[in-house]
Formats: sequence, C-alpha cells, structure tokens
Amino acid sequence: MSEEIKNEEIVEEVEATEEVVETPEKSELDLANERAEEFENKYLRAHAEMQNIQRRANEERQTIQRYRSQDLAKKILPSLDNLERALQVEGLTEDVKKGLEMVQESLIQALKEEGVEEVATDVFDPNLHMAIQTVPATDDCPAEHIAQVFQKGYKLHERLLRPAMVVVSE
Amino acid sequence: MSEEIKNEEIVEEVEATEEVVETPEKSELDLANERAEEFENKYLRAHAEMQNIQRRANEERQTIQRYRSQDLAKKILPSLDNLERALQVEGLTEDVKKGLEMVQESLIQALKEEGVEEVATDVFDPNLHMAIQTVPATDDCPAEHIAQVFQKGYKLHERLLRPAMVVVSE
Repeated sequence: MSEEIKNEEIVEEVEATEEVVETPEKSELDLANERAEEFENKYLRAHAEMQNIQRRANEERQTIQRYRSQDLAKKILPSLDNLERALQVEGLTEDVKKGLEMVQESLIQALKEEGVEEVATDVFDPNLHMAIQTVPATDDCPAEHIAQVFQKGYKLHERLLRPAMVVVSE
Repeated sequence: MSEEIKNEEIVEEVEATEEVVETPEKSELDLANERAEEFENKYLRAHAEMQNIQRRANEERQTIQRYRSQDLAKKILPSLDNLERALQVEGLTEDVKKGLEMVQESLIQALKEEGVEEVATDVFDPNLHMAIQTVPATDDCPAEHIAQVFQKGYKLHERLLRPAMVVVSE
C-alpha cells in the first residue's frame, strides 16, 4: 500500500518536471513525453502490483501450511472419542487395554505434531466450550468453572476444531 | 529495498533527461522516445512477470491443497497398524471387537475422504511394494505376484505415503 503511494509521488514529481519543458517542437515532443509518462506510470503500477501479488501469495501459502491438517484432524476426532469409549468398557484384558492405549497415544501424538491440542477445561469460555448443562457452584468448582467434560474439545494452533461439551457451575 | 533503489534510478534518469534539454530538438525528441520505449519494455516485462507469478502461485496453492494431509496421514498409519494387530488378538469379546472395528473404519474413512487409499497388492510393482522375501511361484500365485502382505502400503492421490511390505513369488 505505502509502496503504491510512493510510486504515485514519484509519478507526480515527474509530471511536474515535464510541464516546464516548453519547446517549439511541442506537439511531437509532447506526444513522446506523454507516451513515456504513460508507460512509466504503467510500469510503476505493474511493479507495485507484482510485489503485492507476491506478498499475498506468500501470506496465503503460510496460512494454508499452518492449517493444512485441519480437515483430516477434524475427521479423526470421532475415532479418538470411540477409543476413549472403548477404553471405558468393563472387563478389558490387559492386552486389549494396552493395545487400545497404544493406538490412542499414537493418534494423539500424530495430532500434536501437527499442532492439534485438547482445549483446556478449567474456567468456562464460550469461545472454547459448549455448555450443555449447569450445576450449582461448590467449593471445589466455583461459579463459571467447568464441573464435567462430556466430550473433549480440540484446536489446531489457535483455531478451534470443535468446542468441548461441558457442564458449567453457576 | 530494491524498489527504492529502482525508483531512485528512475528519478535519476529523469534528471539526466532534463539536463540535456538545451541540445537541438531532435535529440530531445529522441530521448523522449527512447524513454517511452524503455518504459514500455519495462512495463511489458513487469506485466508478463506478474502473470507468471500469479500462475505459479496458483499452481503451488493447488499442490499444497492436494497434498495438505500428507504429514498427518503418514503419522496416522502406525495407529492403523496397531488397530489391525489388536484385532488379531485371540479371545476378544464381541463388544471390544466391535469397538475396535468402529475406530478402524472411522480412521480409514477419514483418510479416504482426504485422498488416502491402500496400495493394491496383486502384481509386484517396485514403485509401490517393498519385497522383504520371495517364495516359489504357484498356480494360485504366479511369478512376480504378491504372495503375502506383511504391512499395508498407502498412497495419497498418486503420491506414495509408504510402500507395502510384501512377499513376492518368483
């Protein structure tokens, strides 16, 4: 933006200088000068625009890179929920439990490496949590704190993938 | 930075032109024409370059989008292996088995939606398969065919995420 302004200033300076050049051959020279000016303007604008395009493309690329795992990560969250539920089934043998925990840990690790993390569930925050129930506040859980988590929430860097479903004290 | 330098150059060029104003009309006109031509060339080059930058940025964006799930998908494959192994454990209760299969299916589905699919394992292809053992060919499994799969391979669109580890008949 400031780049464009700079270019315009230069162009004005050039115009101001040109106007003082009065000679007999006025019309032919004027035409040539006008053409020079016109293309100089066009060139300066194209050059500034080129830099803008390059800057925007870089920014866009960085954003896509940063959130590239968003779609797949979102789709994997239900598998994590299912794993958690499976681990709560009574009477699992040690082998099965260990196997499930290994799968769970490797999934969480894979997501973490891509920037996906659980949403903290301490103080209630409507930007991160969805309150599906309220309970009276207690000493252990004062008002506006989260008493219970029904389903974990996740975010990718600072972008929320899904809110945590929680019970809030009030 | 380079922009400022370039602008300064332009200003200097303009000044240089002004200094010659006292020479006969012809050279002044020539200079103006030269300047016009120069900026026309510069403009045309900048314009062409702008289009190239835009085209390259688009291509790059499409590639990044197409393979955006590559890193996370690669990291999820070991979880799929673990799930498969867990499902082969003897004496699983029906509940546990169903739970594991649900997790497995949801993971495979999530990967599929992002373009990840199992590598076919029929005829041996060194681009898709890693032969870790060979066995004599049989009627059921002629030479250069895959007799057994030790670990599944996966690809993202046409890009291989990891080869299948196989036993080849020969």
